Amino acid sequence: MKIAINTGGGDAPGLNAAIRAATLAALRKGWEVVGIKNGYGSLYTDSPFIPLTPEKVRGITLQGGTILGTANRGNPFEMPYQKNDGSWDLEDRSDEAIKVFHDHGIDALIALGGDGSMKIAHKLIEKGLKIVGIPKTIDNDIWGCDITLGFDSAVTTATEAIDKLTTTAESHQRIMVVEVMGRYAGWIALHSGLSASADVILIPEVEYNFDSIVKKIEEREKRGRHYTIIVVAEGAIEKGEDRFIKGKVVGQAEQLGGADEHIAKKLSDMTGKESRSIVLGHLQRGGTPSSYDRLISLRFGAAAIRAIEENDMNKLIVMLDNKIQRIPISDVADKIKLVPLDGDTLQTARDIGINLGD
Amino acid sequence: MKIAINTGGGDAPGLNAAIRAATLAALRKGWEVVGIKNGYGSLYTDSPFIPLTPEKVRGITLQGGTILGTANRGNPFEMPYQKNDGSWDLEDRSDEAIKVFHDHGIDALIALGGDGSMKIAHKLIEKGLKIVGIPKTIDNDIWGCDITLGFDSAVTTATEAIDKLTTTAESHQRIMVVEVMGRYAGWIALHSGLSASADVILIPEVEYNFDSIVKKIEEREKRGRHYTIIVVAEGAIEKGEDRFIKGKVVGQAEQLGGADEHIAKKLSDMTGKESRSIVLGHLQRGGTPSSYDRLISLRFGAAAIRAIEENDMNKLIVMLDNKIQRIPISDVADKIKLVPLDGDTLQTARDIGINLGD
Amino acid sequence: MKIAINTGGGDAPGLNAAIRAATLAALRKGWEVVGIKNGYGSLYTDSPFIPLTPEKVRGITLQGGTILGTANRGNPFEMPYQKNDGSWDLEDRSDEAIKVFHDHGIDALIALGGDGSMKIAHKLIEKGLKIVGIPKTIDNDIWGCDITLGFDSAVTTATEAIDKLTTTAESHQRIMVVEVMGRYAGWIALHSGLSASADVILIPEVEYNFDSIVKKIEEREKRGRHYTIIVVAEGAIEKGEDRFIKGKVVGQAEQLGGADEHIAKKLSDMTGKESRSIVLGHLQRGGTPSSYDRLISLRFGAAAIRAIEENDMNKLIVMLDNKIQRIPISDVADKIKLVPLDGDTLQTARDIGINLGD
Amino acid sequence: MKIAINTGGGDAPGLNAAIRAATLAALRKGWEVVGIKNGYGSLYTDSPFIPLTPEKVRGITLQGGTILGTANRGNPFEMPYQKNDGSWDLEDRSDEAIKVFHDHGIDALIALGGDGSMKIAHKLIEKGLKIVGIPKTIDNDIWGCDITLGFDSAVTTATEAIDKLTTTAESHQRIMVVEVMGRYAGWIALHSGLSASADVILIPEVEYNFDSIVKKIEEREKRGRHYTIIVVAEGAIEKGEDRFIKGKVVGQAEQLGGADEHIAKKLSDMTGKESRSIVLGHLQRGGTPSSYDRLISLRFGAAAIRAIEENDMNKLIVMLDNKIQRIPISDVADKIKLVPLDGDTLQTARDIGINLGD
Repeated sequence: MKIAINTGGGDAPGLNAAIRAATLAALRKGWEVVGIKNGYGSLYTDSPFIPLTPEKVRGITLQGGTILGTANRGNPFEMPYQKNDGSWDLEDRSDEAIKVFHDHGIDALIALGGDGSMKIAHKLIEKGLKIVGIPKTIDNDIWGCDITLGFDSAVTTATEAIDKLTTTAESHQRIMVVEVMGRYAGWIALHSGLSASADVILIPEVEYNFDSIVKKIEEREKRGRHYTIIVVAEGAIEKGEDRFIKGKVVGQAEQLGGADEHIAKKLSDMTGKESRSIVLGHLQRGGTPSSYDRLISLRFGAAAIRAIEENDMNKLIVMLDNKIQRIPISDVADKIKLVPLDGDTLQTARDIGINLGD
Repeated sequence: MKIAINTGGGDAPGLNAAIRAATLAALRKGWEVVGIKNGYGSLYTDSPFIPLTPEKVRGITLQGGTILGTANRGNPFEMPYQKNDGSWDLEDRSDEAIKVFHDHGIDALIALGGDGSMKIAHKLIEKGLKIVGIPKTIDNDIWGCDITLGFDSAVTTATEAIDKLTTTAESHQRIMVVEVMGRYAGWIALHSGLSASADVILIPEVEYNFDSIVKKIEEREKRGRHYTIIVVAEGAIEKGEDRFIKGKVVGQAEQLGGADEHIAKKLSDMTGKESRSIVLGHLQRGGTPSSYDRLISLRFGAAAIRAIEENDMNKLIVMLDNKIQRIPISDVADKIKLVPLDGDTLQTARDIGINLGD
Repeated sequence: MKIAINTGGGDAPGLNAAIRAATLAALRKGWEVVGIKNGYGSLYTDSPFIPLTPEKVRGITLQGGTILGTANRGNPFEMPYQKNDGSWDLEDRSDEAIKVFHDHGIDALIALGGDGSMKIAHKLIEKGLKIVGIPKTIDNDIWGCDITLGFDSAVTTATEAIDKLTTTAESHQRIMVVEVMGRYAGWIALHSGLSASADVILIPEVEYNFDSIVKKIEEREKRGRHYTIIVVAEGAIEKGEDRFIKGKVVGQAEQLGGADEHIAKKLSDMTGKESRSIVLGHLQRGGTPSSYDRLISLRFGAAAIRAIEENDMNKLIVMLDNKIQRIPISDVADKIKLVPLDGDTLQTARDIGINLGD
Repeated sequence: MKIAINTGGGDAPGLNAAIRAATLAALRKGWEVVGIKNGYGSLYTDSPFIPLTPEKVRGITLQGGTILGTANRGNPFEMPYQKNDGSWDLEDRSDEAIKVFHDHGIDALIALGGDGSMKIAHKLIEKGLKIVGIPKTIDNDIWGCDITLGFDSAVTTATEAIDKLTTTAESHQRIMVVEVMGRYAGWIALHSGLSASADVILIPEVEYNFDSIVKKIEEREKRGRHYTIIVVAEGAIEKGEDRFIKGKVVGQAEQLGGADEHIAKKLSDMTGKESRSIVLGHLQRGGTPSSYDRLISLRFGAAAIRAIEENDMNKLIVMLDNKIQRIPISDVADKIKLVPLDGDTLQTARDIGINLGD
């Protein structure tokens, strides 16, 4: 038995723990394990694979990033190529990819990735590849599972950052706007905002308006709280913004960026208070994983090997109802898990008086 | 409506977040909230209660310990008293406790506690008190729930400590024995041991023998790993130890302590290698809660208020199947949640080659 | 004896430890202690002072920010006032300030602050106020001392952030530009860049050019290091930039900002590599002080009281040659401490191959 | 030019940063660098050296321990050997050691170590070896320098541990005794005790008596502080203990251990309060170095290469008066740096009301 491991998309704390567990568990069964170097894009190069040995995965559980790299990631179904006239286009090179796996005797692939990676995995499965997926994204927005690899670490980093910003905001009596990751879903903003006692939390699932926020700031002033901490997901939407057409996000990626500064400036104008903003950005991706992330990553990695051993292919290993389970990858492709508007966590925020901008 | 909050037993990171959320959520409904000062033992003093206000619970989410204190904890059904001959005995003063609640107009009690606290709560309920419980223990051994308040922080502290001890153990080529909490259940040892890449994990649920551990150490030596990290729960049991009689723990508390030194010495004798040991002890109870613990504690606190509002009394607020749920307190009293021998986490440890002493 | 404490300018980790030590040391001598609420600007309000008691300073050593606040800071010699035509101008209200101190029976003032605060202190001294200064700034650029209160914590925060960014930069094979504080002096950039193994460090003291940096990036590529970490102080200057006229900084504050994005974009254009940038900003001001900062802050606070007791006024308490010493405040006003170009730390960076952009 | 690096004695955070800086700085001069594997004891084996390359020292700045290992450390002047009758004795094998260096063409040795290592270095120098020393010990007790490599990290670890223990001690109203390292000197206890707001600090330099401590506890009780944090250096001495004869420590190592439990029990008996104790032990040696330690370690490593280049041999690279300086190794052998009784830091402790047991 020979298996390959791929880490697709942006990196997340915990990837290395999953690689380590899958590698060790497979080697103990006498299997061979290789990693895809830097993502699917390398399949079209001379040396797409790195042999994974006990020595190679030693001590990596507490390292951020991925030892496999993720710089040359690509979608085998949409690989860029240069046309005769010099312009670029995309072509389907998935058959080649399948052939590379076949030529190297790969029996199964473990695909660590998010939404995009699972879409690709789904299409590779349809072409005959045997895949077991592991849900990885700091955004926690993969359908069908409680939690994804990387999310707890990102929340921890964001929480600690907001803790730091709170003392300085209070000393200076400022409005502090902290932008965290979350294009479509507000998980990081909601969890870190609650944990760090933010006063306002703005998430894509709840359209915000400035009047509501200003009212919150003014209430706080009356109670002698001359500072306000606002946590905003990068994809948060002001009421009336025209970002959605018929339920589909339109051009959001292009529109993102600068939300923190926009909000800080507008609130300063409306309240007369000083404001500052900060974008936590890539900080949330990096660093030593939390112990929680290390553990679920190890469990995901080992569970993937068990699924392959039982020939239960084309499944995503998930934590669902607090148990490791397997669900069809086809079930999660093209879906996204938003913060439920009637969920307990959002309700908790409302119960304790956090403003959601609505 | 007037409610009281009690924090019983040992402190745990997250208690203050739960107190804060319950207080804020209740105050926003126009209720009155008081905390029991230092535990049930204070009910028999002149001043058992502390009024809880927004100012009192401000900024406490990130503080360890409990602002209510837990120094005078006691069991109303077994309060110590001094007899005429000067010796001490226990007496049932539960009726007095009920009366104190009644006299102060307390409509409901939120009891944060572990196994012991839930037993007491169950008996107070039978006497007519209305109680909503919140599961608190760093040991994570409360029946009927995925996870308890305080556990994630304790695992985080233990994991970081083992990380630190690993580099020094490796530099000195030593056996390092790290004792963590867990009298009856090995949750902290298993989770922190996995997260911190321990080589051997000894938990109460799996009896260990030294030959197995020595074999692991010798295998490591052969592969050039001249050090070994052993994480042991304080309640771990050597095979053949006579600590259980007919399935019941006998005198364990008395027998505990010094396990780390015993194991370190014996392994040093058996292998000829240098060994060191350390007891993490109260470090695991203290400090700023992890963001995970802050969040579930806030959710527990707010959910308790919702239960009271709906008059759904005598329930324990739990995280079960990754959802906030309510189960009868009577269901959990006198039970304990052990690490399941066929569970996925223990299997993960075996899959990646961790020695469990068996 | 009655003393007042002022925290001027931006907050820094350690302020509260200094306030605590000064308060406790003074109270033990039977003195009275008050803090100026939010800075000198409050001297012109009805309630400029907060009484400082053991209860008030309890447990604050590990809190970031300043319990006194610094929101209404102002320069008594240049207080803004509104003219009849509605426009604003500045006026000298220093005599009023002196009178407030006199009317409240303040015998001496402890002024915690940076460059600007020491200039003000110097002028207040000339008007007869008795002042002892404590050097506070995360930038570490106060003349005449080894280190300032807040610097070690800022370096620690920046170092940990760069650690986090390194794993993600490496996984994605990116250029990562990290902007840290330091308008005039590159202390934070140099110390955190060295500690976190940055590849390029750009500081105001050394003008940089892009060709040098690109050469470094290309050398790294050749050695298989497909990522590069660049730490840039906000005041770093590209060779040829016209920011200095006759040795004086001109309009630098206005020109600052966006340096990180500019550098990231330009390097991406020049090398064809992906780049990302991040501004650490206020993160560096906040949070629990490092143990080093807690200790020197306590020592500064206690030493200030000893200076007052000995009537050795108008001195700045400094750590100089690793000893607590006192130097005239007049010696440091209008000066700034830059990173010495022939110093050992900069030489260390060169010795181990870090590119300084020159 | 060919140089060797040795890490002697117990490991300390920062060793790897010093190894990295020395290696990179030497390689950039075209020199050859090797490390002694596991200490001088390996000189008598077939393979005493590890070649040090850029790849070998990559990314090690933030790793605890020493990549060279320190398990086989030994004193070439007192190497153990087994006599004919089976018993063990010591013999001088220093000439062999010198020959090994000579045979391998080692021009100079960088010796990272503490008191003991410098004694050995001094004697090797007398035999003709060229040595540059770097002061390494978490205890900070090397004569002639402000601070040693490893100390700041140990203080940081101890401070964070005491922070954690404080919240639980306060919640339970307990006396908490925390034993930190420091056999002869109380630096860690004094610095971490101050930083973490301990109430009592016991160091070897100040003999303590229980009556003084009990008085402090009782004063605290009166002021409503029902808990007390006591930080004790492992070498702290009760007044009247017979551990010194004519100024020389006698058998201290044997007498050490258990001080924390002894103190906790005795104070509990004397005050009637609950007490707990904890020994931080090897935690203080381990883990990622603080940014301060990383920086001075890098500076020490680079400075050692500069000293060798200038042929300024047999010197210890020190931080003295906050500057990197060189002092003769012969000056520090057989000396120890105690906490000065009239120093500013000890005075700060007294000024703010910390009890020193006297």
